[in-house]
Amino acid sequence: MGSYSVVGKSIPNMDSLVKVTGGAVYTGDLKMPGLLIGKILRSPHAHARILNINTAKASKLPGVRRIITGKDTLGIKYGMWRVRPEFLDEEGLATEKVRYLGDAVAAVAAIDEDTALEALELIRVEYEPLPAVFTFEEAMKEGAPLVHEGFKSNVNVIRKIDIGDVEKGFKKCDYVREDTFHTQSVQHCPMETHVCVASYDPLGKLTLWDSTQSPYFVQVNLAATLGLRENDVRVIKGYVGGGFGNKVEFFSNEFCASLLAMKTGRPVRIEYTRREEFTVTRRRVPEIIKMKTGVKKDGTLVARESTILLDGGAYTGQVPTTTMLSGILGLFPYRIPNYRYLGQRVYTNNKPSGAMRGHGALQPNFASEVQLDLIAEELGIDPLDLRLKNAMQAGDGVPGIAPEITSCGLTECIKKLKESTHWRKKRKELPEGRGIGISCYAFTSGGIFNWFNTTLPFSEALVKLNNDGTVNLYTRAADIGQGVNTILIQMVAEDLGIRFEDVRIIAGDTETSTADLGAWSSRLTIHMGNAVRKAALDAKRQVFEIVGEKLGLRLHEELGARDGQIYIKERPDRAISFAEAVAAAQRAKDGMPIMGRGAYTPKGKGLVSSAWSFGAQAAEVEVNKETGVVRVLHLTTAHDCGTAINPRLVDGQLEGSAHMGLGQALSEDLMFQEGRVLNPSFRDYKLFTAPDMPEVKSIVVETYEPEGPFGAKEAGEGLTIPTGGAVANAMLHATGAAFKRLPITPEETFRALEKKAKKRRP
Amino acid sequence: MGSYSVVGKSIPNMDSLVKVTGGAVYTGDLKMPGLLIGKILRSPHAHARILNINTAKASKLPGVRRIITGKDTLGIKYGMWRVRPEFLDEEGLATEKVRYLGDAVAAVAAIDEDTALEALELIRVEYEPLPAVFTFEEAMKEGAPLVHEGFKSNVNVIRKIDIGDVEKGFKKCDYVREDTFHTQSVQHCPMETHVCVASYDPLGKLTLWDSTQSPYFVQVNLAATLGLRENDVRVIKGYVGGGFGNKVEFFSNEFCASLLAMKTGRPVRIEYTRREEFTVTRRRVPEIIKMKTGVKKDGTLVARESTILLDGGAYTGQVPTTTMLSGILGLFPYRIPNYRYLGQRVYTNNKPSGAMRGHGALQPNFASEVQLDLIAEELGIDPLDLRLKNAMQAGDGVPGIAPEITSCGLTECIKKLKESTHWRKKRKELPEGRGIGISCYAFTSGGIFNWFNTTLPFSEALVKLNNDGTVNLYTRAADIGQGVNTILIQMVAEDLGIRFEDVRIIAGDTETSTADLGAWSSRLTIHMGNAVRKAALDAKRQVFEIVGEKLGLRLHEELGARDGQIYIKERPDRAISFAEAVAAAQRAKDGMPIMGRGAYTPKGKGLVSSAWSFGAQAAEVEVNKETGVVRVLHLTTAHDCGTAINPRLVDGQLEGSAHMGLGQALSEDLMFQEGRVLNPSFRDYKLFTAPDMPEVKSIVVETYEPEGPFGAKEAGEGLTIPTGGAVANAMLHATGAAFKRLPITPEETFRALEKKAKKRRP
Repeated sequence: MGSYSVVGKSIPNMDSLVKVTGGAVYTGDLKMPGLLIGKILRSPHAHARILNINTAKASKLPGVRRIITGKDTLGIKYGMWRVRPEFLDEEGLATEKVRYLGDAVAAVAAIDEDTALEALELIRVEYEPLPAVFTFEEAMKEGAPLVHEGFKSNVNVIRKIDIGDVEKGFKKCDYVREDTFHTQSVQHCPMETHVCVASYDPLGKLTLWDSTQSPYFVQVNLAATLGLRENDVRVIKGYVGGGFGNKVEFFSNEFCASLLAMKTGRPVRIEYTRREEFTVTRRRVPEIIKMKTGVKKDGTLVARESTILLDGGAYTGQVPTTTMLSGILGLFPYRIPNYRYLGQRVYTNNKPSGAMRGHGALQPNFASEVQLDLIAEELGIDPLDLRLKNAMQAGDGVPGIAPEITSCGLTECIKKLKESTHWRKKRKELPEGRGIGISCYAFTSGGIFNWFNTTLPFSEALVKLNNDGTVNLYTRAADIGQGVNTILIQMVAEDLGIRFEDVRIIAGDTETSTADLGAWSSRLTIHMGNAVRKAALDAKRQVFEIVGEKLGLRLHEELGARDGQIYIKERPDRAISFAEAVAAAQRAKDGMPIMGRGAYTPKGKGLVSSAWSFGAQAAEVEVNKETGVVRVLHLTTAHDCGTAINPRLVDGQLEGSAHMGLGQALSEDLMFQEGRVLNPSFRDYKLFTAPDMPEVKSIVVETYEPEGPFGAKEAGEGLTIPTGGAVANAMLHATGAAFKRLPITPEETFRALEKKAKKRRP
Repeated sequence: MGSYSVVGKSIPNMDSLVKVTGGAVYTGDLKMPGLLIGKILRSPHAHARILNINTAKASKLPGVRRIITGKDTLGIKYGMWRVRPEFLDEEGLATEKVRYLGDAVAAVAAIDEDTALEALELIRVEYEPLPAVFTFEEAMKEGAPLVHEGFKSNVNVIRKIDIGDVEKGFKKCDYVREDTFHTQSVQHCPMETHVCVASYDPLGKLTLWDSTQSPYFVQVNLAATLGLRENDVRVIKGYVGGGFGNKVEFFSNEFCASLLAMKTGRPVRIEYTRREEFTVTRRRVPEIIKMKTGVKKDGTLVARESTILLDGGAYTGQVPTTTMLSGILGLFPYRIPNYRYLGQRVYTNNKPSGAMRGHGALQPNFASEVQLDLIAEELGIDPLDLRLKNAMQAGDGVPGIAPEITSCGLTECIKKLKESTHWRKKRKELPEGRGIGISCYAFTSGGIFNWFNTTLPFSEALVKLNNDGTVNLYTRAADIGQGVNTILIQMVAEDLGIRFEDVRIIAGDTETSTADLGAWSSRLTIHMGNAVRKAALDAKRQVFEIVGEKLGLRLHEELGARDGQIYIKERPDRAISFAEAVAAAQRAKDGMPIMGRGAYTPKGKGLVSSAWSFGAQAAEVEVNKETGVVRVLHLTTAHDCGTAINPRLVDGQLEGSAHMGLGQALSEDLMFQEGRVLNPSFRDYKLFTAPDMPEVKSIVVETYEPEGPFGAKEAGEGLTIPTGGAVANAMLHATGAAFKRLPITPEETFRALEKKAKKRRP
């Protein structure tokens, strides 16, 4: 860990100014000649066979340019788990059946939105309604109606983990308890809904401007479903107004806009309304978690069994990953030698679930963290001490999952939190109705398993050095507001010894870059960061070779690059400017600019992640026993993100995560009735707003992650995970009542307190 | 010359369909949030000192966002001949003096066009008018007012050529004649006027969407004048609605839009009106050519002396090149062993001149070709035979200019023309008032001399192979309608043995490409073509290495690529598909896509051009002796463009050239009075329209140019050159009168006929 010039500095997110001054052109802002507006007709049934679609009347409406239905498609199913063809079960437009209320049935392209909407009303669809399944009970019942034919049951994904010997483990325990936890459907709620503009040129090339977290996934899925080759499709990500996991997958707006553009020869935009955003995009997977944990008297964790049901909804999407992650992250961030997991993803006729920030981790973490406090209470151990005792350490490994945890600052995080929150004092002295709780977490830093079946490196970058001292960085990394562009530039500038403003980034376009899987699984810092560094170092090596000659370097002398100078390390006075050095290298190549390439695909890092981030959070709450309303007074998080490439951006992630975590803990709940979303608006779906937010404090614990660029790892998703547990545990402290269901609404709280009071009264 | 699969095929210009169906987004179509409209205040004086500019009132006009004058600039002068700093004499906004009527004095950015125009009217400029010079006589007179201070005279460029011994040559001649010729100012008249949109981001990066023939020249000049580094400026060329040489240079709209964007932080568009296009952009250089030529009795050319004055107007721009080319091309396409040239570019207070299709060649060619017919008449030799006798041949060289003409189909062109036009018969038998004339020409195929002082290769390209069988071609080549994108794709497809539609091109953007000088001097086919081929072959080599292993190639066996297959040449049954081969090569590189790079900078090809194209044209005319109106009945051109990469595009170039050539021969004339353009509109400036056009016939004579990709060379500019001469010679044939001034208007014709009639009457 040298001392850095650019890395580690709190450079403002490079996109901030242009965004706040209104200059950023988002996908929905794009105008082009002849642009048509597309709208999608949605199924009013949760489960039905399509008997007939009559578009005759709608087609005749003046201003309608084209209507497409499943019959206009190739009927090719898509999905995210391309490595398992049976998981490719979704269609851009339904061909035979609709499987949830909102399934895409037809799409219209018209000269304006009003015409498109009017046309939708004129389309007549004849359905044969089918019996539907909405709950685990209904879906898993013997002889239940099948959401997808051809499967034996609606349980289409089963994941198991078996570490150590759980039976023996439990036998050795002094105390074993089992609890059942419920987590809710959560909507991602980005400011910008799903939106894309498709354009098809007469030579057979499709271009999609898209608000997406993965230009590559969209490119591949578009190509597959439209019968094109991958590179006949270009996906260009513009500024993205938030994603949070909901823009990782492939959506019917992308499919329909593209197909309509191909059919009409004109550009087509489809932008989801807020209602569509709530009803037909993904949601966080609701889970029922049965967790059984056994400990020694002193609090040492010995064995755990976790059994989870996941409501995946009507299509598989990314939930096989969730199913896996919910198993793995039920174990983290503690040393539990014996662990067994059974996860079952269940088809229902609800809206499909998918990834969301803290993917698959938040749910089991809530269960585990709440249960730990109940155990601590039972054993009379301070919950913080219980965690310290069992915390994972660098050098630990999880058989079959993580060969080695190469960095882990969890213990330090807990200790810092303890100091910062005056933990002991508050645990003892907080008045009636107030409480403080802790929760710890871990998260992946760069997902590994190649379920998408890519033939490309996970990340690749190009770096071009210009003889005016500037550098171009070409990358497919998707900046979706998290600031990855900013930190990638920091890395390149650091490696080349130049300033932040010397680097221009060209990013997020499948045609000006080579490879990247997208912004998910907190992978970009580590995966693309490594690729970018390799590319920068490759370019630097080419320059150093020439500079070496120029400076008449002796064999043992080494060059360094810093502050725009390339110098002999042992004789820093002997230096030439970076621009001059590049110019010399370029001349030596007949004028051809110096280019470096670098790629990264994780190797030898096990099944799950390149690295693991850790952290601990404390919440302090005040519970109004009359109303059940909980106010969070403080939220303090200590996060181990390895080296913080940009502390300001880490802080930004923390602030956003706190907001999201609190909403999920206390207010957010996408509610369904027979497949129908009951609260598809910001009036009825309750997000925390600015005045609702408590003071949020962040403590960055820096470790050095050997697999990460400059020692960096994840700093964005992990932070959303602990809040449910921290709040519930604080409420346990404040009220003595256990909360095992998210969100913890005032009603829930009120009832729990009432129940508790009844118990007390004999 | 093997047999090709894609090269040589008449594939339609890839942009045609999107253009004719209205889908092409031109620069002027771009919309972005907060877009401001810029307008430029122009000098009403041809020569004046700026005493004061008062923008106070204009600044207060609601909707005005910013006004800039010379005081807001760095006062850095720019130009095209960067290798000679004294030729950098132009300013984006005048700081002290205005030098022609139309010089840019101030610029406004406002919320809309009306507001910007109103603001211009409110700007008060105090001028001190200075004596001005408009004609050669005025400008070259002893003690004439200097357009630019610091020079000894207004003659700021002098070019000389001296080959053989002209004095001795003339002494050996049997016949010597001297004539003086005049050529006019010609306006390029693209459908789309000059237009750009500038955007400046808060991190100091400037982006300019521009209708330009050279993104690179604009990038460099913008950086130089704005105090930025080259690569802090990105220039993106969109579809271009014609250039013809007028969009090669750097213009005040590009400068002012950029500076206004920097000052306002908002995007700014400046689009020239048609009037501005006529009055403040470039024009073809008007020349006065004194040509003295001596021949043997049998017509053998022995010596020539050419003395040319060029009205360069107020700024130097590219006219040093014109001055050179007008010297060189007064020699071509004939063997003239003794040649002397003196070219003087003169500063005047007229609008600046610049490059135009057939740059510097059209003017001396007119002189030479008309004079040849006068010589032929005198010697009693058929003009076609005179040309055949003196025609350059492959293997010839011109000392100091062209070490070796490596391909030349001129003789075949003349012979083909003779047959096709029934030359002999028509020369004898055409009725009174009808005539047929011939004219020959040569042109450069790729300018060489590095007057712009680039540090980059002249052209560079990247080729990326994808494992789905597609290929991406990255190039800075500027397709301005001529179809270079189409033929570059043909070359890549040919080299890789794939189909046209397998290649996607990413072009014309300084940030997604490395190097190219632009679309001028008919250089792209040969310069970028060579770069593209090298890149394709570099990529192919990488694939062949792996395929060789895969197919277990023996040492002596060679691979071929054709029809999407890579095969052993001697055993074509042993093949694998291109996609498979690329996939294998990619796997061998850990998934990294295969990329090839290639660059081309001419070497050992002399001072002027990588290669030379040749051709001959015949015009048949009918002269109305009552009105002086000339009707061109047929125009037949035989053109040697080496290998025609795409015969349909060559034809297209010919059709357009015929249109342009005829306008310049007969109707186009940008007229000036004391520096004021008298006819700045399509009402008064007479272009040939579709009904005016005669039948145009094209004969492609293919040679093989060793320096050209697949043997190709120029096919676009050369074709505009001969028409003035061919028409004048046909009129000489029809009427017996010599025409030495362009355009040959009905008035001119009428007077010449009258004069001739008077002479006949004793």
